[in-house]
Amino acid sequence: MSTPARRLANAEIIAVGTEMLRADRTDTNSLYLTGRLNEIGIEVLAKAVVADRLDVLAAIVRQALDRTDLVILTGGLGPTDDDLTRAAVASVLGRGLVEQGHILDAIRTRFEQRGMRMPELNRRQAQVIEGAVALANRAGTAPGMWVEHDGKVIVLLPGPPREMRPMFDDLVEGRLGARAGQERLARRTVRIVGLTESHAEERLQPMYARWAAFTPPVAATILAARGQIELQLTARARELAAADRSCQTAVDDVVAGFGIDVCSTDGRELERVVGDLLRDRGLRVAVAESCTGGLVLSRLTDVPGSSDYVERGVVAYSNRAKTDLLGVPAELIDEHGAVSEPVAAAMADGARRAAGVEMGVGITGIAGPGGGSEAKPVGTVAIAVAGPGPAAFVRTVRLPGTRHHVKLFSSTLAIDALRRALLAR
Amino acid sequence: MSTPARRLANAEIIAVGTEMLRADRTDTNSLYLTGRLNEIGIEVLAKAVVADRLDVLAAIVRQALDRTDLVILTGGLGPTDDDLTRAAVASVLGRGLVEQGHILDAIRTRFEQRGMRMPELNRRQAQVIEGAVALANRAGTAPGMWVEHDGKVIVLLPGPPREMRPMFDDLVEGRLGARAGQERLARRTVRIVGLTESHAEERLQPMYARWAAFTPPVAATILAARGQIELQLTARARELAAADRSCQTAVDDVVAGFGIDVCSTDGRELERVVGDLLRDRGLRVAVAESCTGGLVLSRLTDVPGSSDYVERGVVAYSNRAKTDLLGVPAELIDEHGAVSEPVAAAMADGARRAAGVEMGVGITGIAGPGGGSEAKPVGTVAIAVAGPGPAAFVRTVRLPGTRHHVKLFSSTLAIDALRRALLAR
Repeated sequence: MSTPARRLANAEIIAVGTEMLRADRTDTNSLYLTGRLNEIGIEVLAKAVVADRLDVLAAIVRQALDRTDLVILTGGLGPTDDDLTRAAVASVLGRGLVEQGHILDAIRTRFEQRGMRMPELNRRQAQVIEGAVALANRAGTAPGMWVEHDGKVIVLLPGPPREMRPMFDDLVEGRLGARAGQERLARRTVRIVGLTESHAEERLQPMYARWAAFTPPVAATILAARGQIELQLTARARELAAADRSCQTAVDDVVAGFGIDVCSTDGRELERVVGDLLRDRGLRVAVAESCTGGLVLSRLTDVPGSSDYVERGVVAYSNRAKTDLLGVPAELIDEHGAVSEPVAAAMADGARRAAGVEMGVGITGIAGPGGGSEAKPVGTVAIAVAGPGPAAFVRTVRLPGTRHHVKLFSSTLAIDALRRALLAR
Repeated sequence: MSTPARRLANAEIIAVGTEMLRADRTDTNSLYLTGRLNEIGIEVLAKAVVADRLDVLAAIVRQALDRTDLVILTGGLGPTDDDLTRAAVASVLGRGLVEQGHILDAIRTRFEQRGMRMPELNRRQAQVIEGAVALANRAGTAPGMWVEHDGKVIVLLPGPPREMRPMFDDLVEGRLGARAGQERLARRTVRIVGLTESHAEERLQPMYARWAAFTPPVAATILAARGQIELQLTARARELAAADRSCQTAVDDVVAGFGIDVCSTDGRELERVVGDLLRDRGLRVAVAESCTGGLVLSRLTDVPGSSDYVERGVVAYSNRAKTDLLGVPAELIDEHGAVSEPVAAAMADGARRAAGVEMGVGITGIAGPGGGSEAKPVGTVAIAVAGPGPAAFVRTVRLPGTRHHVKLFSSTLAIDALRRALLAR
């Protein structure tokens, strides 16, 4: 215990409780704690959920303590036999448990205020690990604990979020902040659309190497979802401005390398970026869909205030609907097939003309599982954007995956096509 | 490797990926796997989420393997430098990684089918741990692995749920079940639409008590999502027929208690139930949407083969579109407001007449956050179904929650309204 306090750089979070291992239970405490720890510059290396088993819990605490500077446990501080966190941590540290009279009094008073006698079981909650600082619980009976050991820190918090959160905010965060070193964290989110994850990664790898040599260095994580790539950039420095500057230089790198494939550098989702472009330019849009069945317009209207620029949409699932509602000539469908660039372009133009708005989007494809052919397999989708000018944007893609994924990916590409067309204006 | 296969009683689940440690990310894979493992009688002792750090990951795998019979890892099988699961497990087991030609061919073909060259990076995904069985990935490039070691089992699965779930269901569950014990599991899924979870729960609770006394007993879990309630019923017995019988009696209870609110007793989702009703009756449908922005039709067309009965949809976001496309009289909108039962009914009837089909659905509401008033607050939605007969189904609901939730819930209620109207025919 005479080891000098060391800087806390990283952490593991352990949630205790067999009930937390049910298929319908999410450990939201760890999400909350991760966010707060990141803010004060402590990186979370791993987190775990553990059943109420003393041997397993003690092993997991011991191993976490070997690896990291800070271990935070939530839960298992209740009064019953299967609340084992106190005992597990005490055994790992080789320390005893001591009943503290003032905590026992506080628990007893809490029951009396509700007109109840304290059950003898709750006495256990007044036990504190030798040498630990007890943390008062404003919203429940179980106190938390702050324990220092060999220059490392172990924090025990109650499981219920309404007890855990105020205890962390009021009694733990300040202490951790003081020990976390003074580093501040800067974070930027860049979204890229229109590339697969591996193609994006190939072009990002030389950048990663460059960023790692920045002062302070920039760390990157990449995540792909429904045809979009999300790149998270973080940097730490004593001065937030320095961390921000490193992140900004990395963002500039991505923009220079990916150009128009970069959808946003401020975290905005594609749907919002397109909405902002339409609003800024004073344009409205109408959408004509076939294979996506309304998903393109549904996503565009997920953005609050989208009625400013979304005029209407038509889902022309049948060929007759394409002709009736959008004026797509029946001969054009006969000649090229319903899934073709000329039909997509005619849908886009028909949508915008029928609605009397500036921009139109057309999308027609084969979502599967049926309907594919050798020339046009499942996943073939034609996308078009029409504006007042003559040059319509048209492309054909072939997408992998299930019906669900063809719909999702192709709707992303259609919204992205609108973004590209708007940027080209 | 000559150790005899042992019965698998418990497991740990490890999710790999720094991005999974973000404050806004939940590891849903472990929830899914926990549910499936519990069904085949394997208890989950702990689960972890680990950053992309080889040392930490290897330590956590080693320790999990010391404690439990089965370790399942998800994620970290991608093609990039921070995909470390293969290497970590190989190092823990003291085995090498071997490139498998047929996997490389499959990955290359997958790219070629999309008209793309395989990035050299993806070659890494063809590496398999020595002695492991590769598990084919129907929905992505990364194969999974099944590895036996000292009588224990390690399973590596891809991170994206749409790849992980079918791989587990098709290639892993059966092998695990064969090793997990003798009891057989019967399972039934009942879907209920149109009630809140707590109201459903109130009526279900006396049933739970009854089912617990069955031989074999039936266990129930309830899950509410986007306005639907999913009730999972399971029973275990040496003979599958006995378990099935218990489940069927419980299903009969639910049907007797909930009547038309029961959407399906065979696991079919609402969208498919409605589709089957339309197809069976030889009817087609057209949809007119406002607040849901295309989501009703998009959900109806999530069902393969829905082009048999979905004719078209119109998203009439503006009042002019309601008049132009659906023939809703402008005076009707002036008199009652765009969000009103008469307008919803006129939209439903207009949709079916314009399309020349039998059934029409109309939905108009205030998804928020703007647009609400005292008389019609955010969340007010009018829903109508029209058929050839005179009696249109019309109702108004007030839904809580964000824009996203109002869209989702009200689209469920609109599709359910169509179900009820079809059943009444």
